Amino acid sequence: MATFAEYVEANRERFLEELKDFTSQPSVAAQAWGMQEMADKVMARLSKLGAKTRLIPVEDGFPVVYGEIGDGPKTLLIYDHYDVQPPEPLELWTSPPWEPEIRDGKFYARGVADNKSDLLLRIQAIESWLATEGELPLKIKWVLEGEEEIGSPNLGKFVADNRELVQGADGCLWEFGAKDAHENPMLICGLKGIIYIELHAHGANRDLHSGAASIVENPAWRLVWALATLKNERDEITIDGYSEFVRPPNELELEAASKIPFDTNLELAKFGVKEFINGVRDFEAIKKLYFTPTVTICGLHSGYTGPGGKTVLPNHAFVKLDFRLVPEQTPEKVIELLRKHLDARGFTDIQIERTEAGEHVARSPLDSNIVQAAKAAARATYGREAVVYPTAAGSGPMYELCQQLGIPAVSAGAGYPDSRGHAPNENIRVADYFEGITFIRELIRNFARN
Amino acid sequence: MATFAEYVEANRERFLEELKDFTSQPSVAAQAWGMQEMADKVMARLSKLGAKTRLIPVEDGFPVVYGEIGDGPKTLLIYDHYDVQPPEPLELWTSPPWEPEIRDGKFYARGVADNKSDLLLRIQAIESWLATEGELPLKIKWVLEGEEEIGSPNLGKFVADNRELVQGADGCLWEFGAKDAHENPMLICGLKGIIYIELHAHGANRDLHSGAASIVENPAWRLVWALATLKNERDEITIDGYSEFVRPPNELELEAASKIPFDTNLELAKFGVKEFINGVRDFEAIKKLYFTPTVTICGLHSGYTGPGGKTVLPNHAFVKLDFRLVPEQTPEKVIELLRKHLDARGFTDIQIERTEAGEHVARSPLDSNIVQAAKAAARATYGREAVVYPTAAGSGPMYELCQQLGIPAVSAGAGYPDSRGHAPNENIRVADYFEGITFIRELIRNFARN
Repeated sequence: MATFAEYVEANRERFLEELKDFTSQPSVAAQAWGMQEMADKVMARLSKLGAKTRLIPVEDGFPVVYGEIGDGPKTLLIYDHYDVQPPEPLELWTSPPWEPEIRDGKFYARGVADNKSDLLLRIQAIESWLATEGELPLKIKWVLEGEEEIGSPNLGKFVADNRELVQGADGCLWEFGAKDAHENPMLICGLKGIIYIELHAHGANRDLHSGAASIVENPAWRLVWALATLKNERDEITIDGYSEFVRPPNELELEAASKIPFDTNLELAKFGVKEFINGVRDFEAIKKLYFTPTVTICGLHSGYTGPGGKTVLPNHAFVKLDFRLVPEQTPEKVIELLRKHLDARGFTDIQIERTEAGEHVARSPLDSNIVQAAKAAARATYGREAVVYPTAAGSGPMYELCQQLGIPAVSAGAGYPDSRGHAPNENIRVADYFEGITFIRELIRNFARN
Repeated sequence: MATFAEYVEANRERFLEELKDFTSQPSVAAQAWGMQEMADKVMARLSKLGAKTRLIPVEDGFPVVYGEIGDGPKTLLIYDHYDVQPPEPLELWTSPPWEPEIRDGKFYARGVADNKSDLLLRIQAIESWLATEGELPLKIKWVLEGEEEIGSPNLGKFVADNRELVQGADGCLWEFGAKDAHENPMLICGLKGIIYIELHAHGANRDLHSGAASIVENPAWRLVWALATLKNERDEITIDGYSEFVRPPNELELEAASKIPFDTNLELAKFGVKEFINGVRDFEAIKKLYFTPTVTICGLHSGYTGPGGKTVLPNHAFVKLDFRLVPEQTPEKVIELLRKHLDARGFTDIQIERTEAGEHVARSPLDSNIVQAAKAAARATYGREAVVYPTAAGSGPMYELCQQLGIPAVSAGAGYPDSRGHAPNENIRVADYFEGITFIRELIRNFARN
């Protein structure tokens, strides 16, 4: 009987062909493009593995592919998504986004890094286990959604409606991951929460000649004044009561963060800035990046913004704001505090428009089994310690599927710093792909054992 | 020999045909459309009158039509412009903008109100004078420019290069004017100055994922904070030293302003607002409108402003600001104070972009001959007192041509409140046009006499 490694080697070309098949199928949720076809492909691949599968419809959305295989005292939940980002701008791709191509050891295609390679290699790793090691020592459940790239608007409802499928899992392997610039494998154990809103200010019943500005209120000024009360130049969020809901990192999280490599000068050069906010460097920068909440002006508009001058008094101004949240903040609390804060300062005219539910903060205990198993798996696979991130700086629907049900989660995957997720020439390194398959074997082994 | 009134009546149809000829000729400076053709028409009409004319070229611009006629101890300067606003949006015109049409006693065409009717009726009034009253009792000089609607970028240079043509005039009849909502003729004796600038803030070398917002500065926040230091919620301009250069209105100006009709509730309803800034009403509103400087956010932009959410940390933000000036402010002083103000608060990163020279404040003494003559002419023409505005709330190049050379100016014309200058369905009332011809006769008579 072949070893796991021999089996993978013997099936190397087929595994890559399967990845080509997955990535040549467009599946753009934002454009409702190829979604059913992709869900069918994923269903078929899981069935071929021998998993029990179900296509669970989502009202006004794209279905969840659910799968189960194996048995044992432990249950590992796997979360991936079969939708990808839109491919535009097309002209910046060296090879077309839906025509996968391997060049210089890199596999180029839209969605290969985010998240089709991890979705598929996890299945191929289990196939290789079954072919070489026999029965699985645990139960594996898949939740493969089709709406991650549009903000997972229905994942919360899916969990509410299908709680029995998910609850009781002992740990979750989350969708994404990469090696860092030093080739260290990264393990991400949480995500910031997020709430995205718009603030609107309205003035006269139409845009006016700016000669009227001495007596008719300008909503752009109202918005500027209101915004200036939300955050100060020391980057402190000054919304009344905001800091009361911020739990600082615990000792395990701080210790993990202290091991995150961060070359301040390199990072400054990468962003093209002279210094970071408040001049933070090294560990101070890491703590600020991962453990502090943010409020970001993502978009701002009022009046005439074309070429040349137009002396107009606008009648409307708006801002798009995202709030990135840390424990114990919630989207609901942010909206509540913001409304009170604005009202207390006379900005009752500033409207808050909330178009998305937002996402809750997700943090997994760093001493949980899934995190420990992932660390051991990384050590066995890559021969070095993984860098453990208590949280990413970004957000995602991890809480809805995992922490909400008491399931700790860790994210790890086959990307690298130049994978260009969401951008033209998205790619992974082929060698990382096959190391990723080994990592899954080690994760199963270690997680089942603990 | 016919009287003036009989002559005008006998030539009524021809006068309107000439106005149709003028307004059927596009002359859009912003689109460099029909400018030479229009200048030629104006030259021909002045020549037909018997004036000495010159077409004075403007480097990288449209020529000034200069004319002279008559003689006497006094010289009256007439300023008009033969360029008009672009006609767009075309679909909102009832009759096409370049196909003049009289409906219900109103003459519709692009540019008829601003400013071809006044340009032409002043010539026709002088023709009527010559045909019925004999020699002119004064000298008349015309400066008819082709760039008013694009901000008169070359008028200052024209004056500097042709000072001998203009200086020594005893008064100037400025281009525009209208009856107010109560059918009172309005006389405008000044204009606010203006300086239009952009402020730019720059961040990282590209737009970033907003996860980076805890450490990478957001130029949109920088701009918001900088703007919030320029004006407060009581509408006070808080730029260091700004108020020191504001001369309050004198007694004559205040007395004139006290006679400006202003129905607060009607004005509030017109703009669709519940109250004016600081709750001002009646005379307080008039004083605020005409005698206080403003700084207006005309346009504001950063990041993503399309539909839906995009979690982006923008790398650029800008604002378009206009400052309306009152005596003794100047465009140069505003820029100087603003730069110092921003620097003093650490906003050395905020760039000031000045793309236009700006316009100086213009005020004519209310007891000057030209203002007094216009008041008498209005009384004789309309049988009622004119409303004398020490200044308009808007701006224009009056200072460059007049006050700079010590020439007092007054603006009066054939418009009415629904003339829709700069907008679709621009129009004047035909009756106002012919009253305007009478007003010119009375102005010449009274101005020559004083």
